[in-house]
Amino acid sequence: MKRSSVAGLPCSIAQTLEIVGDWWTLLIIRNISFGQRRFEAIQADLGIARNILSDRLSMLVEHGVLERTKYQDNPERFEYRATAKGKDLVGVLFALMAWGDKWAAPDGKPMVVTHVDCGHETEPHVVCSECGEELQWGHTRVKPARRSQLHHTTD
Amino acid sequence: MKRSSVAGLPCSIAQTLEIVGDWWTLLIIRNISFGQRRFEAIQADLGIARNILSDRLSMLVEHGVLERTKYQDNPERFEYRATAKGKDLVGVLFALMAWGDKWAAPDGKPMVVTHVDCGHETEPHVVCSECGEELQWGHTRVKPARRSQLHHTTD
Repeated sequence: MKRSSVAGLPCSIAQTLEIVGDWWTLLIIRNISFGQRRFEAIQADLGIARNILSDRLSMLVEHGVLERTKYQDNPERFEYRATAKGKDLVGVLFALMAWGDKWAAPDGKPMVVTHVDCGHETEPHVVCSECGEELQWGHTRVKPARRSQLHHTTD
Repeated sequence: MKRSSVAGLPCSIAQTLEIVGDWWTLLIIRNISFGQRRFEAIQADLGIARNILSDRLSMLVEHGVLERTKYQDNPERFEYRATAKGKDLVGVLFALMAWGDKWAAPDGKPMVVTHVDCGHETEPHVVCSECGEELQWGHTRVKPARRSQLHHTTD
């Protein structure tokens, strides 16, 4: 029997979790996506410890997920905005929301999302770029991209 | 200026992160999705501490994400399989992968995914259930589902 070994391989799931694999990090980005961009507001809303929020914001700026911009001079005050890299995390937030709506909301989904572009109430679906169907467990095959080019295995 | 307050509201992102908001949890589910179902194999592959793996597996069984089944009697040995609830997390895994492929893979995406149903190499997209377009940052409006029915605010 072959043993699958993916941890030793480069893996974009692992790389993403290195940056956002923390309960707080994604909730901070969620709050910023709702237009809540300032330290004090995020801190009060999430009830997160100040040192943890400060640490996570710095990490996200360092990774280019957020940018810190001054909005006031006296005294100096800063706010946080998502970069293009940060804005792209909205897909992860929606995938988490869709799962929670289905499996962790016994009284029905708590929030309703409207897609502004089409005007309809929407449910996020994770689909195949080629055929548009939902990607389901067991319906995909994953193989290393570069290893398959570098090595021609004989077994 | 209104202050948005979402942490106090029910939120499916927060509820999902309560279950899977941990670097290891999603990697464990990733490994199981690749067919690696046994404690020793997952432990060796991820290099995770045994007590942490044991704790996370128990938590996932408790939440109904995984089920533990006996595959051998002498000595007793168990393996872990995803339930329907666990299998639905594949969308979260794919959303994480898509982001990492784009933003955390400077040498190109490490893994290639083939969608078995259509036979094509695929990139996971998070789209609107109604119009099929990708859901983008700033193109959605979120409001509480039940609060809006219970309260008629006057402002």
